[in-house]
Amino acid sequence: MPVNEQAPIEITAFRWVPPFAQGVVRDLRARWALEEAGLDYKVRLLDQERPADYLLDQPFDQVPCFKDGKVAIFETGAIVQYLGEQSEALLPRDAQGRYRAIQWTYAALNSVEPAILSLLLIDIFFVGEEWAKLRRPGAEEFAKMKLKRVSDWLGDKEWLEGERFTIGDLLMVTVLRFLRHTDLVAGFANLDAFVKRGEARPAFGRALDAQLAVFKENEPALQPA
Amino acid sequence: MPVNEQAPIEITAFRWVPPFAQGVVRDLRARWALEEAGLDYKVRLLDQERPADYLLDQPFDQVPCFKDGKVAIFETGAIVQYLGEQSEALLPRDAQGRYRAIQWTYAALNSVEPAILSLLLIDIFFVGEEWAKLRRPGAEEFAKMKLKRVSDWLGDKEWLEGERFTIGDLLMVTVLRFLRHTDLVAGFANLDAFVKRGEARPAFGRALDAQLAVFKENEPALQPA
Repeated sequence: MPVNEQAPIEITAFRWVPPFAQGVVRDLRARWALEEAGLDYKVRLLDQERPADYLLDQPFDQVPCFKDGKVAIFETGAIVQYLGEQSEALLPRDAQGRYRAIQWTYAALNSVEPAILSLLLIDIFFVGEEWAKLRRPGAEEFAKMKLKRVSDWLGDKEWLEGERFTIGDLLMVTVLRFLRHTDLVAGFANLDAFVKRGEARPAFGRALDAQLAVFKENEPALQPA
Repeated sequence: MPVNEQAPIEITAFRWVPPFAQGVVRDLRARWALEEAGLDYKVRLLDQERPADYLLDQPFDQVPCFKDGKVAIFETGAIVQYLGEQSEALLPRDAQGRYRAIQWTYAALNSVEPAILSLLLIDIFFVGEEWAKLRRPGAEEFAKMKLKRVSDWLGDKEWLEGERFTIGDLLMVTVLRFLRHTDLVAGFANLDAFVKRGEARPAFGRALDAQLAVFKENEPALQPA
């Protein structure tokens, strides 16, 4: 269990989030990459009301930030790539293998995630709104089209580039998990198996447990009705 | 003018797109980075109807792809980063400078672009639809909040990390240009100046001219009414 208060690596995470977000907050990506790389880390916990100077660390007011005494960065894509530099288990060393993996991090975050998050926002944040009701079928179609693109590419490969798990797979799995409130991924058997293969990795399990343990510990007391 | 049929580098681009997309199609990012790096390239032009096997090069059926005999990749984030590796003018060599620049490529493409493209899609593709009319004010507010985040970070700096232009600035400028049909960027004087500084770079000018020249050459004949 590499959460270690003495570690030089620090990430930020939330002390507590509502159940719909538990298990998918983005520090999970950093934790997972750290676990795959076998690196200890400590966690700076933030309340939903962040300190004003947090914007100096993270201009978009999100989690996680990452620092290790050598770099201080935000954006999960950059963080997992930086960790990949330190672990060949996450990022191949030859130019083609390296850049194919990096390419899939951008594909996950730019070609797939926006369509998926649109649907998630409609279903969670905007669920009562008229525009959301009208838009939902189109947003679902668009998300399914993106899933089909990834599914068609994946075919019967184990990971996006074949036999080797990389930071591209790590991010794509976490993006696809944003649809866990739907059965859309299950509609593509190979994608469903891909996500399950990711979730079955011991490093993923440790990362998820570590995120959830914090929320359990900081569960707000029931409010009087 | 580094478009050179003998160059080992090849990117893909569209033969023609409608006026609203001219000057913002994503091969512009690759062309700009190539111009900054001083690298010759050739262009493989595609019709809107792409060959079926194009999905093997670009699973999302978009442009550009990039190949140079060493790597074959897609996703503009990965392409400009790869070009950054070959040009210190685009990507610092120290760990912190390097990863701050890489971080901004992900920020541009994941923390900013989705909000901006949502608004662009509402204004261009879904303009007649009822949900789009209902959603537009909220989508504009969300895009403005993202602009404010970037503006607050930028302050009076020349580029996102100070005096030095990087791949992070290159991508952020191209993302902000997706709002050229609105006056939203102009509402933040420092962001407006940032975009104009980017557009004033000679490499940007050459890249834009090269993209537009292809469209002009391939302008469809007027259809009989």
